Amino acid sequence: MSDTRVKFVLDEPDIPTHWVNLMADLPGEAPPPLIGTPPTQQPAGPDDLTPIFPMALILQEVSAEPEIEIPEPVREAYKLWRPTPLYRARRLERELDTPAHIYYKYEGGSAAGSHKPNTAVAQAYENAQAGIRKLTTETGAGQWGSALAFACRLFGLDCEVWMVGSSYDQKPYRRSMMETWGATVHRSPSDVTESGRAQAAHPTGSLGIAISEAVEVAAQNPDTNYSLGSVLNHVLLHQTVIGQEALAQMAMAGEEPDVVIACVGGGSNFGGLVFPFMRRVMRGQATTRFIAAEPAACPTLTRGVYAYDFGDTVGLTPLMPMYTLGHDFVPPPVHAGGLRYHGDSPLVCALVKEGLVEPRAFRQNETFDAAVRFARSEGIIPAPEPAHAIRAVINEAEAAREAGESRVILFGLCGHGHFDLSAYDAYLAGKLEDPEFSQADLDAALASLPEAPALA
Amino acid sequence: MSDTRVKFVLDEPDIPTHWVNLMADLPGEAPPPLIGTPPTQQPAGPDDLTPIFPMALILQEVSAEPEIEIPEPVREAYKLWRPTPLYRARRLERELDTPAHIYYKYEGGSAAGSHKPNTAVAQAYENAQAGIRKLTTETGAGQWGSALAFACRLFGLDCEVWMVGSSYDQKPYRRSMMETWGATVHRSPSDVTESGRAQAAHPTGSLGIAISEAVEVAAQNPDTNYSLGSVLNHVLLHQTVIGQEALAQMAMAGEEPDVVIACVGGGSNFGGLVFPFMRRVMRGQATTRFIAAEPAACPTLTRGVYAYDFGDTVGLTPLMPMYTLGHDFVPPPVHAGGLRYHGDSPLVCALVKEGLVEPRAFRQNETFDAAVRFARSEGIIPAPEPAHAIRAVINEAEAAREAGESRVILFGLCGHGHFDLSAYDAYLAGKLEDPEFSQADLDAALASLPEAPALA
Repeated sequence: MSDTRVKFVLDEPDIPTHWVNLMADLPGEAPPPLIGTPPTQQPAGPDDLTPIFPMALILQEVSAEPEIEIPEPVREAYKLWRPTPLYRARRLERELDTPAHIYYKYEGGSAAGSHKPNTAVAQAYENAQAGIRKLTTETGAGQWGSALAFACRLFGLDCEVWMVGSSYDQKPYRRSMMETWGATVHRSPSDVTESGRAQAAHPTGSLGIAISEAVEVAAQNPDTNYSLGSVLNHVLLHQTVIGQEALAQMAMAGEEPDVVIACVGGGSNFGGLVFPFMRRVMRGQATTRFIAAEPAACPTLTRGVYAYDFGDTVGLTPLMPMYTLGHDFVPPPVHAGGLRYHGDSPLVCALVKEGLVEPRAFRQNETFDAAVRFARSEGIIPAPEPAHAIRAVINEAEAAREAGESRVILFGLCGHGHFDLSAYDAYLAGKLEDPEFSQADLDAALASLPEAPALA
Repeated sequence: MSDTRVKFVLDEPDIPTHWVNLMADLPGEAPPPLIGTPPTQQPAGPDDLTPIFPMALILQEVSAEPEIEIPEPVREAYKLWRPTPLYRARRLERELDTPAHIYYKYEGGSAAGSHKPNTAVAQAYENAQAGIRKLTTETGAGQWGSALAFACRLFGLDCEVWMVGSSYDQKPYRRSMMETWGATVHRSPSDVTESGRAQAAHPTGSLGIAISEAVEVAAQNPDTNYSLGSVLNHVLLHQTVIGQEALAQMAMAGEEPDVVIACVGGGSNFGGLVFPFMRRVMRGQATTRFIAAEPAACPTLTRGVYAYDFGDTVGLTPLMPMYTLGHDFVPPPVHAGGLRYHGDSPLVCALVKEGLVEPRAFRQNETFDAAVRFARSEGIIPAPEPAHAIRAVINEAEAAREAGESRVILFGLCGHGHFDLSAYDAYLAGKLEDPEFSQADLDAALASLPEAPALA
């Protein structure tokens, strides 16, 4: 019976009780974030973050505890869509005629359609506990904004979202989704903030401008905080429910993954799946390989430099130690909006630097080729972001076939593509653009880095 | 622990092994379909259906066996999304401040986003077994077309869909979804069929025209069959996996539903959830109430007449014994496209006629009011069709509060609303139309009925 299994199902009591904090396992002292504006170059401490984050999240951000307990109301909220299923991709294996066994952890069954609610509910809960009444945030294509709108609704918070102007015009359905959950959505640049009014000359907006607007409102109002959907340690921490469940499900399947693959934008999907498996490697309990898949149009980990840089485009955040393409790099408009980020989670970057993670970059068309093959065998239509992971998976599975060796592959399918079908349309019509990062882009990136201490 | 449960999860081996054929339980002899074109008024037999359906499905259509075994390859395909979860709507209960316990069976987790694949994979399998190479069908908003495109892909069949012209223009993403799974999608009326060319003067098309195009191609090509997504006995039969799983899950919850509620268009969602519960009532094992929710703009069960009528607008099908608003009634364009049908499943109609099912009609705005309340408490954004069931559920739960009595309510949440967000947008902006069925509509319906024997 177990030999024909397609789906590995956990039950409500199997929702993890703790998050995995990989910081505790990192070799040596991690380089701290530095205060960048004004550029005093001092390490940024908890106090620097209190205007926009509640103390509970700040403490998670800097914690050295190996595990952090999940508050019961957050686990209660997780029950709305967790545990999520793990699938064996038997139809894709047959289609590829590969001896590899392919597994995927599917996070698209949440109401917002991706893994993002795993951290959104944790952040909304801690802010509500701290007496905060409203959360602000920015969103590009709308995945993060809708996750936070959903989470705020569950914990009785107001939610105000600045959505990048061009996306606001092109993706009205993501906006309707946020409004259905009761959020207020502004087209950014808006006229309700100083930052927005100052950028009226750039009507299509950018993520950098939208961040500035959301942070400005949070910083000015004591009952309002700001919420970020990736990059920071506490965000990746919250996502580790994914990998913990996947570990239990791989055990149900009776297999040990040889390689774990996930896409990387800001790193929260990658860290969420990978960190619980990485901990076992760091503790000598396993020898898993890890592949981080990113777009060739925004190849942070494969072509960026490891240096201190701002987390945002405008330069409001602390300086973060990470691989970066320069904080003023504007990636071309590939459809994987969630991967269009110049930097990356410092935690994930440290693992790449240590050689524990192999980064790989893929072009847009080869990515959609993989996505369509997946949809035609497994059914689920993937979001463009995890389609990068699927491209890496298919390459690994084909390599296994050529080498004539078995290989167990696990990857993260972090969201569905129901709001990305215009991209599929363009791909099927042969009209999808295929941008790549150029030497000139790289030169500009190096030139734009702020002055800061060099990283080892 | 069980007292805080939100989700009741079954495992792969719990996928039902048989479908429930309620025909075996109906009191008396069901009135047979009659050949309507030319109006010979003779009962339509299996031979009349062989040009467009495979014999295995025809035998299911007329079977008197109480249970029919599910072929193993169909159960194997079901594993891609079944068993589906049953939820206790604890947040909605709190929001309504009701003593009622509310449960919902969620079918939106399938790749196509609704319950439709339950029958699509069964039909695709039997056609593939019969040596058929292509299936044709019509689709309005695209739910059924995408389910069949997905199912055909799984069993190696080509799929050709005629999509109603106005929907083709307004819902390009549903078209992209079908094409991603490899289907060919025509804007109906098309120039590839005689039926389509004859209707070139009606460029926005209609479901009736699209059916004619799909049936024409199936009837003319020996290796091509036609596939229908609702109404017929074998389609409702396939959907009974929903109700069987729900029975097992309600037992896990330790509760017996006092009332089971589902929306009705052609009847496949309603029959799928209700029939396994109805069988228990018919056999004296339970005393459940059943409510069928439909749009006030297309109130087939609440205001239609019980008579023989054509299943399609053009008059190509056999005459079916059912509640009908007249086969040439064109319902106003409410967003619940799946409920815009002039007739209804003869099986469901017989249960209404027997007084075993209470039909209720709801206006579009009160329906979206319920949908938004549901989304804001439970997270999932429902499709407009099951929003009608949610309206009925909220009314029942409020009645329970007023009566001060506990009540266990189970309803079918047959699909998500990811492709219906423009309707939510209109509702939230106060711009949603609220059409109702008029006396003039009813008079026209009565006048348009074909001559046929009266039904008891």
